[in-house]
Amino acid sequence: MNVMEESLQKHREWKGKIEVCSRAKVNNAKDLTLAYTPGVAQPCLEIQKDPDLSYELTRRANLVAVITDGSAVLGLGNIGGLAGMPVMEGKCALFKEFADVDAFPLCIKSNDVDEIVNTIAMISDSFGGINLEDIAAPRCFEIEAKLKEKVDIPVFHDDQHGTAIVVGAALMNACKVANKKIEDITLVINGAGAAGCAIGKLLLSLGIGNLIMVDREGIICEGDNYLNEAHAEMAKVTNKNKLHGSLADALKGADAFVGVSKPKLVTAEMVKSMNDKPILFAMANPTPEIMPDEAKAAGAFIVGTGRSDFPNQINNVIAFPGIFKGALAVRASDINEEMKMAAAKAIAGCVPEDKLNAEFILPNSFDRSVPVAVAEAVAKAARETGVARI
Amino acid sequence: MNVMEESLQKHREWKGKIEVCSRAKVNNAKDLTLAYTPGVAQPCLEIQKDPDLSYELTRRANLVAVITDGSAVLGLGNIGGLAGMPVMEGKCALFKEFADVDAFPLCIKSNDVDEIVNTIAMISDSFGGINLEDIAAPRCFEIEAKLKEKVDIPVFHDDQHGTAIVVGAALMNACKVANKKIEDITLVINGAGAAGCAIGKLLLSLGIGNLIMVDREGIICEGDNYLNEAHAEMAKVTNKNKLHGSLADALKGADAFVGVSKPKLVTAEMVKSMNDKPILFAMANPTPEIMPDEAKAAGAFIVGTGRSDFPNQINNVIAFPGIFKGALAVRASDINEEMKMAAAKAIAGCVPEDKLNAEFILPNSFDRSVPVAVAEAVAKAARETGVARI
Repeated sequence: MNVMEESLQKHREWKGKIEVCSRAKVNNAKDLTLAYTPGVAQPCLEIQKDPDLSYELTRRANLVAVITDGSAVLGLGNIGGLAGMPVMEGKCALFKEFADVDAFPLCIKSNDVDEIVNTIAMISDSFGGINLEDIAAPRCFEIEAKLKEKVDIPVFHDDQHGTAIVVGAALMNACKVANKKIEDITLVINGAGAAGCAIGKLLLSLGIGNLIMVDREGIICEGDNYLNEAHAEMAKVTNKNKLHGSLADALKGADAFVGVSKPKLVTAEMVKSMNDKPILFAMANPTPEIMPDEAKAAGAFIVGTGRSDFPNQINNVIAFPGIFKGALAVRASDINEEMKMAAAKAIAGCVPEDKLNAEFILPNSFDRSVPVAVAEAVAKAARETGVARI
Repeated sequence: MNVMEESLQKHREWKGKIEVCSRAKVNNAKDLTLAYTPGVAQPCLEIQKDPDLSYELTRRANLVAVITDGSAVLGLGNIGGLAGMPVMEGKCALFKEFADVDAFPLCIKSNDVDEIVNTIAMISDSFGGINLEDIAAPRCFEIEAKLKEKVDIPVFHDDQHGTAIVVGAALMNACKVANKKIEDITLVINGAGAAGCAIGKLLLSLGIGNLIMVDREGIICEGDNYLNEAHAEMAKVTNKNKLHGSLADALKGADAFVGVSKPKLVTAEMVKSMNDKPILFAMANPTPEIMPDEAKAAGAFIVGTGRSDFPNQINNVIAFPGIFKGALAVRASDINEEMKMAAAKAIAGCVPEDKLNAEFILPNSFDRSVPVAVAEAVAKAARETGVARI
């Protein structure tokens, strides 16, 4: 039985990967008067007087909504919110298992930006944070931006920022192993969708030397016309040498490659054309832009993929649980750029210096010290940037 | 420490009365591939092909949303959704504790009918049923009606129908003890809000002889002008003798009284004016329309209240967990009048004939056989009325 069949069978057995449990045992009439009427009137009145007490008297302080419209689920495309729910439930299970954060899955029956934003804003008081998931670009940018305006709890599109943070961490450690400085390197991102643009922005925040973004049409370059606003914006801050051309052109002499695109777009030739000690994060799923063995044979120094069956798995699960845990811990009103950078640095720091090598640049997904370290770093950055509320 | 103070302290300790638990343990890389990527793609694709599989491959089949706008929370009035959340969480805890139904609390940041309806409809695919809670009349009628049009899962406003079902059960057993027939009695409902109107409708379905509704303005009577549509509707089907006047006028010669109004509106004089063996359900909270000892002294034969410190507590907790459990068990598309009647009869039937007496007309809230019996009866009625989907 392959993993797909086995997963389907497990899903039939699980009958849902999450459930809602009661923290208030109700075994007798007295319990009922405390957990429900008439006693429950008192916490209600306290929250009415001071809305911040919702963080102390309900589950809100530890509760995240995982919300999708199902428009970009895994590599499956726009399969709709309902069909995307197994992914959302899986994510919620991971939140709980990895960081003891309560997360609840919701799907929205619309692909319209304003309908999605309004729906989420309407129910946002029920949560301490919003994790957007599997929403297609460029709509996801607008949804996130509009939602951040409307609500005072953190909004975080994990496909963008979670991925960016893990890539940032991987790149920091890869540079250390390759003995390069992040501010000196040229890095090529292939795929300028939600993840690609977010990775680009975070790497710029981390001070990367030269960033070149490549989309289906080729290298993104200032001065060209872009219908896609996100591309126009990236064009302004990337590609210092105003290069035009294809992915192959971009890779010539580059130090690093990040692929969030399609299988097998990178050839051995391209790897050979790169600078000394090339770093490649080929994250197309399930088949990467270039297979690790082929890349290594062509001279790659460090290779990472999205897969668990090769070294250096670039997996959001090492980021999102700790990020929300940290944001919730200080009731952050936002997850800002500084908090994302702090998360990336914390993840990078979870690989001990003496163990760091070309096949071990990221901590193991099951290293339980990672979400703890990430949460601490994120909470600290929230405090330092004034978005912490406690 | 009184119950209010104690409840507040317990709420501080609980830090939320519900939490989201994982049913899929994720302890190693293999687990991750089954519960999350890449394996999770398979259940997603199956649901995309056949949306009904969402009931088998996600938690939906056992999951209810408990939703409020906070406009009529307990006796506290319009305190807003956020402040109402301790009640919603309490309700969710009871769903789990009494019937192993997963329920998740949501508050909506609006009091507008269409905004509330649209928000709930947008997220309805995430759930197997919708429990509306603590929404003010007459808005709640419109919200429920519109929402039923928009979604194909059961929508149930517990303040209306849950209360009506328990009153129906209590009345059936009270009539048995008093040796009266429901089709012969005259019953007065004081308070024509959400609960009052729903109780009235269900008692009419159960074949009550003569129903008289009384509101602040007095007896509701056909021919009078009503701005409130619900009152106009009730006027047409109640008050057979076209009585006008006050609550006192209505009660003269009546067999039974149901109060969903205000404390101390019923006097000993009024009880004395009623027919032989008067039955009184005085449910104003926390102080009933008449205190049980005062009613008894004035000749009341059976008295019920909403309180746990007197006999015959009329408490929704004996209804809603089993009702949703039954509706979910057969994937009902609705909770219709027949299902409500079946629930009332099942609850009444849970008091053994040989134990039935004037102080024991309803089963104990903690009798775990009640939700089981209610669920079975509700599922059967759903099948018989064609709203069951499995």
